[in-house]
Amino acid sequence: MFSETLELRGHIIDSLILPKVLDQILTHGANFKIGEIKIGKKRADQSFARIEVSAETSEALDELVLRLRQHGAEVAKRADAHLAKAQDGVFPPDFYVTTNQQTFVRCDGKEIEVQPAMMDSAIAVDRKKHSARAVKFFDVSKGDEVVVGHQGIRVVPVQRSTSRTDLFQFINTTIDADEPKSAIIRELARELQRARRAKGKVAIVAGPAIVRTGAGEHLVRLIELRYVDRLFAGNSFAVYDVERALFGTSLGMNLDLAFARGGHENHMRAINAIREAGGISAAVQKKILTGGIMHACVRRHVDIVLTGSIRDEGPIPGVTIDVVEAQKVMREKLADVTHVLLLATIQHSLAVASMLAPTVKTVCVDIDPSAVERAVEHQPLQSIGLVTDVEPFLQELADCIADSGPVAAGDRKRQ
Amino acid sequence: MFSETLELRGHIIDSLILPKVLDQILTHGANFKIGEIKIGKKRADQSFARIEVSAETSEALDELVLRLRQHGAEVAKRADAHLAKAQDGVFPPDFYVTTNQQTFVRCDGKEIEVQPAMMDSAIAVDRKKHSARAVKFFDVSKGDEVVVGHQGIRVVPVQRSTSRTDLFQFINTTIDADEPKSAIIRELARELQRARRAKGKVAIVAGPAIVRTGAGEHLVRLIELRYVDRLFAGNSFAVYDVERALFGTSLGMNLDLAFARGGHENHMRAINAIREAGGISAAVQKKILTGGIMHACVRRHVDIVLTGSIRDEGPIPGVTIDVVEAQKVMREKLADVTHVLLLATIQHSLAVASMLAPTVKTVCVDIDPSAVERAVEHQPLQSIGLVTDVEPFLQELADCIADSGPVAAGDRKRQ
Amino acid sequence: MFSETLELRGHIIDSLILPKVLDQILTHGANFKIGEIKIGKKRADQSFARIEVSAETSEALDELVLRLRQHGAEVAKRADAHLAKAQDGVFPPDFYVTTNQQTFVRCDGKEIEVQPAMMDSAIAVDRKKHSARAVKFFDVSKGDEVVVGHQGIRVVPVQRSTSRTDLFQFINTTIDADEPKSAIIRELARELQRARRAKGKVAIVAGPAIVRTGAGEHLVRLIELRYVDRLFAGNSFAVYDVERALFGTSLGMNLDLAFARGGHENHMRAINAIREAGGISAAVQKKILTGGIMHACVRRHVDIVLTGSIRDEGPIPGVTIDVVEAQKVMREKLADVTHVLLLATIQHSLAVASMLAPTVKTVCVDIDPSAVERAVEHQPLQSIGLVTDVEPFLQELADCIADSGPVAAGDRKRQ
Amino acid sequence: MFSETLELRGHIIDSLILPKVLDQILTHGANFKIGEIKIGKKRADQSFARIEVSAETSEALDELVLRLRQHGAEVAKRADAHLAKAQDGVFPPDFYVTTNQQTFVRCDGKEIEVQPAMMDSAIAVDRKKHSARAVKFFDVSKGDEVVVGHQGIRVVPVQRSTSRTDLFQFINTTIDADEPKSAIIRELARELQRARRAKGKVAIVAGPAIVRTGAGEHLVRLIELRYVDRLFAGNSFAVYDVERALFGTSLGMNLDLAFARGGHENHMRAINAIREAGGISAAVQKKILTGGIMHACVRRHVDIVLTGSIRDEGPIPGVTIDVVEAQKVMREKLADVTHVLLLATIQHSLAVASMLAPTVKTVCVDIDPSAVERAVEHQPLQSIGLVTDVEPFLQELADCIADSGPVAAGDRKRQ
Repeated sequence: MFSETLELRGHIIDSLILPKVLDQILTHGANFKIGEIKIGKKRADQSFARIEVSAETSEALDELVLRLRQHGAEVAKRADAHLAKAQDGVFPPDFYVTTNQQTFVRCDGKEIEVQPAMMDSAIAVDRKKHSARAVKFFDVSKGDEVVVGHQGIRVVPVQRSTSRTDLFQFINTTIDADEPKSAIIRELARELQRARRAKGKVAIVAGPAIVRTGAGEHLVRLIELRYVDRLFAGNSFAVYDVERALFGTSLGMNLDLAFARGGHENHMRAINAIREAGGISAAVQKKILTGGIMHACVRRHVDIVLTGSIRDEGPIPGVTIDVVEAQKVMREKLADVTHVLLLATIQHSLAVASMLAPTVKTVCVDIDPSAVERAVEHQPLQSIGLVTDVEPFLQELADCIADSGPVAAGDRKRQ
Repeated sequence: MFSETLELRGHIIDSLILPKVLDQILTHGANFKIGEIKIGKKRADQSFARIEVSAETSEALDELVLRLRQHGAEVAKRADAHLAKAQDGVFPPDFYVTTNQQTFVRCDGKEIEVQPAMMDSAIAVDRKKHSARAVKFFDVSKGDEVVVGHQGIRVVPVQRSTSRTDLFQFINTTIDADEPKSAIIRELARELQRARRAKGKVAIVAGPAIVRTGAGEHLVRLIELRYVDRLFAGNSFAVYDVERALFGTSLGMNLDLAFARGGHENHMRAINAIREAGGISAAVQKKILTGGIMHACVRRHVDIVLTGSIRDEGPIPGVTIDVVEAQKVMREKLADVTHVLLLATIQHSLAVASMLAPTVKTVCVDIDPSAVERAVEHQPLQSIGLVTDVEPFLQELADCIADSGPVAAGDRKRQ
Repeated sequence: MFSETLELRGHIIDSLILPKVLDQILTHGANFKIGEIKIGKKRADQSFARIEVSAETSEALDELVLRLRQHGAEVAKRADAHLAKAQDGVFPPDFYVTTNQQTFVRCDGKEIEVQPAMMDSAIAVDRKKHSARAVKFFDVSKGDEVVVGHQGIRVVPVQRSTSRTDLFQFINTTIDADEPKSAIIRELARELQRARRAKGKVAIVAGPAIVRTGAGEHLVRLIELRYVDRLFAGNSFAVYDVERALFGTSLGMNLDLAFARGGHENHMRAINAIREAGGISAAVQKKILTGGIMHACVRRHVDIVLTGSIRDEGPIPGVTIDVVEAQKVMREKLADVTHVLLLATIQHSLAVASMLAPTVKTVCVDIDPSAVERAVEHQPLQSIGLVTDVEPFLQELADCIADSGPVAAGDRKRQ
Repeated sequence: MFSETLELRGHIIDSLILPKVLDQILTHGANFKIGEIKIGKKRADQSFARIEVSAETSEALDELVLRLRQHGAEVAKRADAHLAKAQDGVFPPDFYVTTNQQTFVRCDGKEIEVQPAMMDSAIAVDRKKHSARAVKFFDVSKGDEVVVGHQGIRVVPVQRSTSRTDLFQFINTTIDADEPKSAIIRELARELQRARRAKGKVAIVAGPAIVRTGAGEHLVRLIELRYVDRLFAGNSFAVYDVERALFGTSLGMNLDLAFARGGHENHMRAINAIREAGGISAAVQKKILTGGIMHACVRRHVDIVLTGSIRDEGPIPGVTIDVVEAQKVMREKLADVTHVLLLATIQHSLAVASMLAPTVKTVCVDIDPSAVERAVEHQPLQSIGLVTDVEPFLQELADCIADSGPVAAGDRKRQ
């Protein structure tokens, strides 16, 4: 039997850290012995546990300890991380793979926080600057020092808030199609108002269904009310919006339906018009584009991040068509975001979600329950999923924000 | 080769009758020769086709002709239907199985219309009264004369309207989750207003999600505005509504969520309360039940048809727990209905849909696309399906109806 | 502030009992103070915690304590349960509503175990016989003594197995559509073999898709191998099976497709044939029914429990059409069942699942992820969900069981 | 009233061309008068119809005629197409947007077939070479002549086969989850065998679920049997396959499940290994990669087309990360393909489907019904959709192909 002693600290019971650790140990067929445990007696108190884990082989133990570290367990005897040299675009063998949790790496006896907190990365350490970066393959060059193994790594999972300040207090909340959503949306409006006051940054990740269902006008209201700082979308979202602005149709049912059903011609013509104008902003300046979401973004200086896919027609100018470049742009534009709304687009939602720090508050709205679940799975303590049509969601959210009047009053009403 | 000559009449091309007939022939590996064809030259004109169908065996031909008749093809040489005696609750072998289309049976050289038009039934003929009934197993007694084979049967499919009066003009329309619904809902509101003026009867088939999502208040508005004549639901729908009326909760998000999530206790207590009161109406009279959908139905004299299932708790008094008896009641209460809204309940929707005449206008609303498709498949020319949350649907429908003011004005606005 | 002291015992951390209790306390806005905690140091050791819970109102505290009791918390100061008299079919106000966990009620200072462990019931106590029954509304008569409030109730949740004997060791396992299923199915085959040896009882809850997809032959193999003791299904399942046996079709693609697509006539004729014969067993005896699942059940003396719904055609003799009566029969036939396979039928699966003791091992197979989740949610520690087609599942399961040879050998192979 | 005379030719009734044309006319609120109609009297005969269409405005008529042309209607009075000059990457205003149907453009009195038949393109005409190309935005340069308006365009829709040679004879066939699939898969195996003999080219579009569900080995069998000519996939498909080949796991259930559930480390290491080796082929040559689908493709000289997305980790060398470049490669590699299997990947399936000529036979397999419908909607007469798990599908397909022995024998058996 091989064994190692691990330590857990924080709200390890109600944030499910200790249970997850024991679950992993049992699931891996290993054994544990709890050496010491102190449970915080009040809600705000921290807890502590020391656990001796044993497994039949040293490989199994190592594999297990790696996982337990990702849930926040620390190995009791502290040691420096091992480093090895990268090649250009290639990590050294056995490189440590990050989670999206806050992570520290121990070098020369001191811990350095890894920046940013991003999952599925390696950790490059600059000993001179005493800094550690989460890096993707394309970020490393020959000679960069990268953490290998998992010694010297400490992960600090997001822990459950001990105060009740917002709707993100629930664990793994998904509101199903047959559950009431009004109260959640109202609360979300308040959360966004608080974010506004606190100088938070709100990003919208937007799918074409927003335009197709006619929800665009509600998103425009949010933009006009200055509730959107960044807009992440694909080429087709922008084109749908432009198409609606240029050729669409408040003329009644038949036109609406015709719009929804076919009309590839207009889609193609919308692309052509933007290409001819030289891009979205140029089309706004030239008064070719005078309405819609893109127009509102340009007017209100919302950062637009458009990325390409193999399904794109066009694309229109401004879309990043190199997907590696696109990821770099997205990462940069997400760095200071505090709240993300993932709206009716599984591909973009998953791409964005994989780049978020675990503290970013995330709301996912989609009519497909499995899309919602996948989009929020990496933010279990900071996310809300709503299984619903995006149109009534955006309508109600924009109504709540527009109606609620001065923020202070809104908060007072609640008490 | 065995062959038979068939005739088709009506709007056989744009109502897809001729294409379906040719599709069946090809799919069954048979051959056809079109003997004569007259296509109506204008929209309102009737068409006519005479087709000689041939197949390799007489059984295959017979099987094929049976199917073609169900699409409205008539055998050119007219003959009387064959009749055979039923036993108690048992049809004679080779009994003719009805579709939900208008059907005529030829007896003693004259055609009798089968009443009602209901699918998956046999046809019992009373020669003396010169009448024909669509009968279920439980409707026949020993000695009743039932049609066998398919000779002497003529089916007249619903044909596509040649005028554009309402939103049911489209064929097989389903509005997907990412398509706009507002225009459809507005038009549906107008259709219901026209139905109201024309003394139509509107039935609602209601699932628990209406209550759970908080859409009950909108359904209550429709009831108060006298837009509902019948309500079909299960025991659990009624209990959810009562539970909400007795124990629920306009107190904010947490209570709403608690309601949605668990709270089986209140569910059980609601049942107990209604059982103690002696039923829904009694609970209204005794002022135990003072709000909600059931209460509105009692106040507004809406016929409530509650039926049971093996998943029911309780049930509450008034629920028909014998499923055969329940079907009889449903059939009776659907006989004069002109419009049906199937809302968020696949089981009840399918049960009701199977009892509808093909002329009943049907709207199905569900978040599950396959549920919508199955619910409307028997009314291809008279149905609209909407893949969406029921809550925003009912809210918008009730708003449209409430806002539109006097019916005449509403129609005028449209022009 | 109002407070109460609660105690937890058992594998309260890795079975998630303590975390759930703290989660409930936080979610309800209450506070806790942990008075004493002993965590079992090894895997098999029991743990203990004493928690003082406080809330702002006595009602909130009471509501919270009720929920915590359902997770296994006991109030530290023991007291007898309160009892009140029922009326016919009506419980006294404030009756205690059971979970599906093992439950004890304290009367005259002694605890009695409530039998059976069934959720959404009241508890009727017979002081003379010193017995306690979980009762539905229809089980109680005037004067029966029923538990009210929640004092004197102790719930013992199923705790996670501390040994690794079977595939039900995981918590809340659902295998999604894009995950591998072969290993799980192989393991399930072994579990059923162990169940067989241990004289367990296996119930199949079967939906029509089993017949429609052609999986019937694999279910027949399981029946022939004596792996099925009970079959729960609806009228339509039996009719689909009979229809296939009487009229169907191993003749190739077209017939198979024709079968799948329409063919309501054969469905109706199958019903008529069984009605004429006088039922399934009679049809087997008269050699009318000579194949299929129903036939195999009759031959192998599998208990068939057929229940009715408002969607049924027929029904065939033997179907219980009174839904309350049907529930009684189902409850009785499930009493000694140890393993349940819920196959491709959401309605019957939910009805059966609501009647299961928490120790019954449950597997749910459905192509709809939400159906799977709902079916297994009450057996979180004893269930496996598989999101997949039922046909390949049954084929592989029957293959595994047929191939594995003598049970002992199969188990040896594994080591 | 404005009117125009249109002509239809071919199997206009059973291929649903005439009905669709009349449906469009009615849906657009226009009128029609059938001037002449000749319906082919036998199955193989062509039909002809001349229809006068009238609408209230000339714009409405023009819009309508455009749509009718896309269904194969020709304007009776023939005229040359109008051409206008493109700019670099920008089409002239009012450019004609293609469907995926065979299309002819009339220039100088003669018709030229547009190559390739690809939807959502413009048509660039080279008068000197008397050729016409379907072009995307990135294909045109300043001065290229592009068709504007829809005059001079003739579309010839794929018409239904009049012989019964294969399973693609049905219209819009989707096999739902609860329908039998074995017969279809058997027939598909025969179709692929015929394709093989006829030197057809088979492309597989593959999603990660193939690897994750363990279906990779069946795809490998198809590759080894030389039934795959092209493989289209994303970076993540290749990585999943490599990960399984390098780190996976025939060790039993737990490892299988661990693989399915998390294990991002191995995913990252697989990418690193391929990056280090210099690509898939290099990894095969260096004996780093010795199994799996990619390995089989390299061994059997299957063309691998890997394209990138913003969700990719890595990517590995060989993935085209510029999405416009990727589309060009895909288009080129699809040009001679006769059969496409779209397996468990909605994004790639839609991208590929949008590039297919309407004569390419297409099979889509996915567990999501709406994904299946969308993937095959542009090939209504040449496609089969199967709603099912990809693992049993591939297993059965590979079994059928492996078992069927010499192709001639297989065909003989069928007769």
